Amino acid sequence: MKKANKKKNAAIIIIGNEILSGRTQDINVSFLAKWLNDLGVSVDEVRIIEDKEETIVNCINEVKNNFKYIFTTGGIGPTHDDITSKSIAKAFNLSYGYHKEAYDILEKYYKPGEFNEGRKKMAKIPHQATLIYNPSSGAPGFIVENIFCLPGVPSILKSMVDGLKHKIIGGKKILSKTISVSTVESEIAKSLEDIQKKFKNIEIGSYPFFRLGKIGVSIVMRSTEENQIDDCSKQIISFIQKKKIQIIERE
Amino acid sequence: MKKANKKKNAAIIIIGNEILSGRTQDINVSFLAKWLNDLGVSVDEVRIIEDKEETIVNCINEVKNNFKYIFTTGGIGPTHDDITSKSIAKAFNLSYGYHKEAYDILEKYYKPGEFNEGRKKMAKIPHQATLIYNPSSGAPGFIVENIFCLPGVPSILKSMVDGLKHKIIGGKKILSKTISVSTVESEIAKSLEDIQKKFKNIEIGSYPFFRLGKIGVSIVMRSTEENQIDDCSKQIISFIQKKKIQIIERE
Repeated sequence: MKKANKKKNAAIIIIGNEILSGRTQDINVSFLAKWLNDLGVSVDEVRIIEDKEETIVNCINEVKNNFKYIFTTGGIGPTHDDITSKSIAKAFNLSYGYHKEAYDILEKYYKPGEFNEGRKKMAKIPHQATLIYNPSSGAPGFIVENIFCLPGVPSILKSMVDGLKHKIIGGKKILSKTISVSTVESEIAKSLEDIQKKFKNIEIGSYPFFRLGKIGVSIVMRSTEENQIDDCSKQIISFIQKKKIQIIERE
Repeated sequence: MKKANKKKNAAIIIIGNEILSGRTQDINVSFLAKWLNDLGVSVDEVRIIEDKEETIVNCINEVKNNFKYIFTTGGIGPTHDDITSKSIAKAFNLSYGYHKEAYDILEKYYKPGEFNEGRKKMAKIPHQATLIYNPSSGAPGFIVENIFCLPGVPSILKSMVDGLKHKIIGGKKILSKTISVSTVESEIAKSLEDIQKKFKNIEIGSYPFFRLGKIGVSIVMRSTEENQIDDCSKQIISFIQKKKIQIIERE
């Protein structure tokens, strides 16, 4: 899956057995994707992988050159199953241990006597890493080359990304427009395909839904080009009206 | 990420720009993972990829030999962005077009005159595929070698997997036990690590949570060995009680 490196794209690597087992529902992908889209970065792939050093190292080596930015979530806490930092160091062949700045932050964060071994472990990251500050719970994330390592707890992750904006060089904001209509996909498939052929810069998606006992289809247009989305939207509404299909909602 | 082929494991490939954009929250991973765990199959990797033929073909070729079973979700509907069937045919170099059995099912499913082009497209799958029956909405999924192709709409996907059980040769059911305690991870990190070292067949995970204004940690044990989970659980409870930490919940 080679990509031109100049593309303003990202991959997200969710590190965590709790997601793979179905025990925990991931919600970080959706949050990070929207945040990145606003910065003009598309998320082109997500992987959810096990808390295993070999797996993490191989995954990072497989994806690091294919995307401009890689975000990892999970595995930077104090317990034995938190092995992201060590694995990232290994993937890049970097020295790993107490990171002075991280150690100082954590030492100040905890009360005297409370900076125990578990907490000290969170200061062990690749020595060369740049820190990502954590306004919620002290323990920083970090950046190594194009890899941004964030925690798995959604509320903490959310509090940390604001400080990252200036590190992301994106393109034009990725815009999205949705027209939800009261029909089934097969009724509009041909017309949508014809419109998709005309608008090469717009990604048109069609998603059936069942909501409040009603069936319908959400037609989603995505592009960085606002004028083209508007033109495309007009053509979609025009054929929807010709077919006498009810429009439920426009977003 | 090579795996021994004899491992009873699976990968899930979510095909859909709507998940990558953050517009739609995936819930199929969690459902499929729990269903597979009950059948004794672990989910070792998940990928979320774009609705692009080249991407799907490359992804399938990358993963097909690394896992015993591959499940795909999404992209088998009637619209232009539904390209999973065609891409799977291409990945395996199979002929693609109207599948007689699928065509017959759909022709019977719809009223006369309603079997339009869009609906007919859903009968286009690799000729050699085995069908996965769909009790909800007619259009079948299909199996090619170790790839099981399912739809993206969760309610339809759920209705289809029951008929698949006899096709999955799993191992012993993967069991899980959770002890949620009122503490922070760093307080129990050392003791948990020591217990993990003693129980090699048990995967012990530690997950902080914030619930109803309370902080806590869920300690999760996963294994196929019930007796060992029980022993491990006793040792965890013993050190939790010694530390005078409150147990909030046991599942």
